[in-house]
Amino acid sequence: QDMATTAGKNVKVLLDNEKVRVLELNMPPGASTGLHSHGDNVVYFVTGGTATQVTNGESKTMTRKPGEAIWSGPVTHDTTNSGKTAVKTVVIELK
Amino acid sequence: QDMATTAGKNVKVLLDNEKVRVLELNMPPGASTGLHSHGDNVVYFVTGGTATQVTNGESKTMTRKPGEAIWSGPVTHDTTNSGKTAVKTVVIELK
Repeated sequence: QDMATTAGKNVKVLLDNEKVRVLELNMPPGASTGLHSHGDNVVYFVTGGTATQVTNGESKTMTRKPGEAIWSGPVTHDTTNSGKTAVKTVVIELK
Repeated sequence: QDMATTAGKNVKVLLDNEKVRVLELNMPPGASTGLHSHGDNVVYFVTGGTATQVTNGESKTMTRKPGEAIWSGPVTHDTTNSGKTAVKTVVIELK
C-alpha cells in the first residue's frame, strides 16, 4: 500500500522523480497513516511528537524532538499520532 | 569542498550512513555556506526565505516558501541568505 494514498488528506507529495519521492505528513492527534510500505527512507521531524508504529503486529511508541532525522530500511507499518499535538514530518523515499 | 566543513557553526549533520547524509542548515541573514559541492540532493525548506546562489560565477536569487522541497543534481555553489530572516533548511544528499 502507498502512504500517499492510505494517509489521505494528511499527506502531500512535495517532489517525485526517478531517484526520490518526498512526502509531507501533517498528522493531527489520533490520526493514523493506514498500513503502508516504504523502501529505504529518511523521516525528518519538523515538529516533535509521539508516534505509535505497528510493524508485523508489534507495537512500538516513540517520542521524537523537532529536527530529528531517522533512517529506515524497507518496512511495512501503520503509524498513529498517539500524542496530544499535531505532528509534521517529511518522508524522503529513495527509489 | 564539503558543506559540513565550509558552513561551520551554521550546519549540523543529522544522519550519515552508506546511502544518505542529512544536514540541517540554520543561516542567519547575510550568512554564506562557502563554496561547496553536492552530489544528487533534496533541499527541504523548514522556513521560507531568500537565498542567492553563485554557480560557476553566475548569481541567482530565489525566494522559497516553508515546506518547499527542491531537487538538485551534482552542483558546486556558494549559498548566501540574502533575506532579512533566518533560514532553516534540511539537505538530504544521496550517496
